[in-house]
Amino acid sequence: MDGLKLTLKQHHTQQTCFSVGDITIGRDFTLIAGPCSIESEKQALSTAFMVKEAGANIFRGGAFKPRTSPYSFQGLGEQALKILNLVRQETGLPVVTEIMDPRHVGLVAEFADILQIGTRNMQNFPLLREAGQTGKPILLKRGVYATLQEWLSSAEYILSEGNPHVILCERGIRTFEPYTRNTLDLSAIPALKEITHLPVIADPSHGTGRASLVPSMSLAAVAAGADGLIMEVHYKPEEAASDKDQALSPALFRQSARDILDLYRYLHIPKKGP
Amino acid sequence: MDGLKLTLKQHHTQQTCFSVGDITIGRDFTLIAGPCSIESEKQALSTAFMVKEAGANIFRGGAFKPRTSPYSFQGLGEQALKILNLVRQETGLPVVTEIMDPRHVGLVAEFADILQIGTRNMQNFPLLREAGQTGKPILLKRGVYATLQEWLSSAEYILSEGNPHVILCERGIRTFEPYTRNTLDLSAIPALKEITHLPVIADPSHGTGRASLVPSMSLAAVAAGADGLIMEVHYKPEEAASDKDQALSPALFRQSARDILDLYRYLHIPKKGP
Amino acid sequence: MDGLKLTLKQHHTQQTCFSVGDITIGRDFTLIAGPCSIESEKQALSTAFMVKEAGANIFRGGAFKPRTSPYSFQGLGEQALKILNLVRQETGLPVVTEIMDPRHVGLVAEFADILQIGTRNMQNFPLLREAGQTGKPILLKRGVYATLQEWLSSAEYILSEGNPHVILCERGIRTFEPYTRNTLDLSAIPALKEITHLPVIADPSHGTGRASLVPSMSLAAVAAGADGLIMEVHYKPEEAASDKDQALSPALFRQSARDILDLYRYLHIPKKGP
Amino acid sequence: MDGLKLTLKQHHTQQTCFSVGDITIGRDFTLIAGPCSIESEKQALSTAFMVKEAGANIFRGGAFKPRTSPYSFQGLGEQALKILNLVRQETGLPVVTEIMDPRHVGLVAEFADILQIGTRNMQNFPLLREAGQTGKPILLKRGVYATLQEWLSSAEYILSEGNPHVILCERGIRTFEPYTRNTLDLSAIPALKEITHLPVIADPSHGTGRASLVPSMSLAAVAAGADGLIMEVHYKPEEAASDKDQALSPALFRQSARDILDLYRYLHIPKKGP
Repeated sequence: MDGLKLTLKQHHTQQTCFSVGDITIGRDFTLIAGPCSIESEKQALSTAFMVKEAGANIFRGGAFKPRTSPYSFQGLGEQALKILNLVRQETGLPVVTEIMDPRHVGLVAEFADILQIGTRNMQNFPLLREAGQTGKPILLKRGVYATLQEWLSSAEYILSEGNPHVILCERGIRTFEPYTRNTLDLSAIPALKEITHLPVIADPSHGTGRASLVPSMSLAAVAAGADGLIMEVHYKPEEAASDKDQALSPALFRQSARDILDLYRYLHIPKKGP
Repeated sequence: MDGLKLTLKQHHTQQTCFSVGDITIGRDFTLIAGPCSIESEKQALSTAFMVKEAGANIFRGGAFKPRTSPYSFQGLGEQALKILNLVRQETGLPVVTEIMDPRHVGLVAEFADILQIGTRNMQNFPLLREAGQTGKPILLKRGVYATLQEWLSSAEYILSEGNPHVILCERGIRTFEPYTRNTLDLSAIPALKEITHLPVIADPSHGTGRASLVPSMSLAAVAAGADGLIMEVHYKPEEAASDKDQALSPALFRQSARDILDLYRYLHIPKKGP
Repeated sequence: MDGLKLTLKQHHTQQTCFSVGDITIGRDFTLIAGPCSIESEKQALSTAFMVKEAGANIFRGGAFKPRTSPYSFQGLGEQALKILNLVRQETGLPVVTEIMDPRHVGLVAEFADILQIGTRNMQNFPLLREAGQTGKPILLKRGVYATLQEWLSSAEYILSEGNPHVILCERGIRTFEPYTRNTLDLSAIPALKEITHLPVIADPSHGTGRASLVPSMSLAAVAAGADGLIMEVHYKPEEAASDKDQALSPALFRQSARDILDLYRYLHIPKKGP
Repeated sequence: MDGLKLTLKQHHTQQTCFSVGDITIGRDFTLIAGPCSIESEKQALSTAFMVKEAGANIFRGGAFKPRTSPYSFQGLGEQALKILNLVRQETGLPVVTEIMDPRHVGLVAEFADILQIGTRNMQNFPLLREAGQTGKPILLKRGVYATLQEWLSSAEYILSEGNPHVILCERGIRTFEPYTRNTLDLSAIPALKEITHLPVIADPSHGTGRASLVPSMSLAAVAAGADGLIMEVHYKPEEAASDKDQALSPALFRQSARDILDLYRYLHIPKKGP
């Protein structure tokens, strides 16, 4: 891992921790949940109250959506940012949303608690620098084609702007397997724990592309040592404007969140002696 | 999943279970451990007693080794089979070893309780048929390039010979990532659980190629729903004749096996009510 | 190929052709050559005169460089744009250079004849839209992970802004092979010729990462039906500030260009009868 | 390229050449053509006469077919070997056919002039050894997942049995692209020419899986430096028992063979001076 000055463990012996809302990322388990896209006030608020009650501590929702086709739904943009603001006020949950354009970073940073850089922009260097300069926590997803070294080099762009608050998010790499949308590389979690001091979370929704696989892969990510998860939940998955195959229903999310948090406690809370 | 008559869940509604030694594979947790290669009586026996005491219920060890180079150690062959026989007699553990050549299948079947077909031979169709005809349980590893459909088609070759006792073993696929030897595709576990009635285990040793990642990825595989694990253990990893970077030491295996079995019980044994 | 309205052949039966400098791209063979990065006036001018004399009809040179590490040479920026302007004035060659940031597109469009969107930005949608709006010809490289469908969807972003002047550039995909930097997918050329009316060129320099393979792969691209090539040439490859392993020396480029142009004429100029 | 003693150029400075029928492989252009599977005397003979007339100098046809599914057509076996024998007698063309099982190698070697080891068996080490011992020329296809180093290590297995007559055949690697069946890695051709003294040919039929791409990719392989090609031709592609999408019709093959042989002569026969 040549050329990495700030992201390696050897240069910063303590695990990076920082507060967002009521939790300390890197120390407390981070459960981020919400819809792929913000579609309406009603959709956002009802989903947010539900995921909060089920144990989520951060809300996610897309305002500017990177879509493969120019003719697909591109997100509600600024209107969605206002809805995210409302969600925060009403539920108390911090919010994370994606940035795609360096010209929008300032605007999004006014409304969001965490800025997400998506898989397609992992090596969008002007965006990385601009995000770094906001000082806001950055959730940096892995490119579907990216080695761990390249991913950490992208994190290094943010840290080198003076912003140490980066969360790495494994969200699946591209392979030849058609059954899943991507191949969630859970070995990246313990590997990164060996290499870097930054917190690492997993996205089993994009990682598999199939709601039926999300609960198992969430538990697997926790067992692999993830500091958190980001999961897609929609109050009516079959009506979602994007990525409906991978969104959990409220019922499925409630059960899954319970299992996830129980497993995290089982693994991390010291057992009492006799 | 076209063209699969025997391996799909829809054709066989019950999970496949069968006895090997004292356990029922597909129902009890299967913990297979041992060295990559059988190197000597002493190495095999001491490792076998150790892994048994730590909780393993099947012993693994290579007699005929598929090696990329013709000049690498090719295994002790028939001598190793006799050592495996001795291990079974002395420890009571059933043994699994790899077959590579259809002409050796009968010989190996005399000595081994389970026949392994390795990743390079997943589509060695004469070998699959020959293995099927023995009636012995077959541990079928996934090809590093194989889709789930292709893997199940190879299982179908064995089942179509009248042998229903197949264990599928996810052992990592080939991707562009150099940090790990392969990329262990844990999503294959819940995916296969949706598709097939066959038991599914994982090989975190070949899946990662790094001993330091094996404990975490073992727990992750259990959390993903694996019916078992196959792990490389060597009493002196630094002296192993093959694959020394991925072998656990006895101390590391003992700790890891305890954590694995505890997690399995946590996940599968119903919690008592108040 | 769903959701593509403008890039498919079925919607636009004639091959797209447009003039840049003295040539018509899509009809004449396009030979783009020059250094990875513009390093100085002297380096740029001397390379430009040389490649022109050898048969190149467009000059390439990076001003803003997308580099994996924040600590690598990032290009001379605006100073390089002025050098490119000088190259055009002195040699008469049109110039192509990469854009990375939507905020720089207007500036770069003042100086460059063709705007390049690199592999890391193939799905940088704000950049695609901004580039589309300039009306300038766009050289769109394939993402190292991108399917043909995704690549054409990115072209569709540009065309849907009213800009039909897109050149597709195959530059290698990421695979497991370590001998080459990428795997140049030449089958993309005849495949795209079946699907789209846009011109298609190849980049054997990034596609292989090894100067020794560039001449053969250039000929292969021409034989596969490419409308042109983009090649890295440096007057002293061993002193190049970036990508020195893949740059051709002047002597090697001269020989290679001669062979390329001869082969193109052999394949495309009708043979006379007896 | 560690551990390769016999296949590297540095150990054997002359290009390997050997006679098969009327040609010297490694020196003359090798054009192998014929159907995927031998289906009948009539199909084999009529195809063989046609490809010979069109310029092919070796006939191919499968007797034992490696099929993903146990329920697919498995080839006519010994009956097909007799048909191949007849083809040789009637047309004078040498024949190549695939071996899958070490127990059949002796039998196939009685009938075939070249033994093919297919992509799925590239690391079937007992088969490699057995094939090496026959002393017959071996056409060794690349595994869809294999690095150049691994492929050459498999060739080394054959050479280390005392058989220097190996032809390497690039036939496409597995990537994420669904438009083509595989991705034909033509850069393997000049790369192998740097590394090894063995002849290298390409298989554009399996490499693309689409008959429409075969002519272009054949020319590209020749331009990349291939010593030959192996192509699937069927007198009625739509009725082929296997791989019908990639088989050329007689008309298409005749045109393609003419273009291929013309291009080879253009590239390899010294131009006369003025």
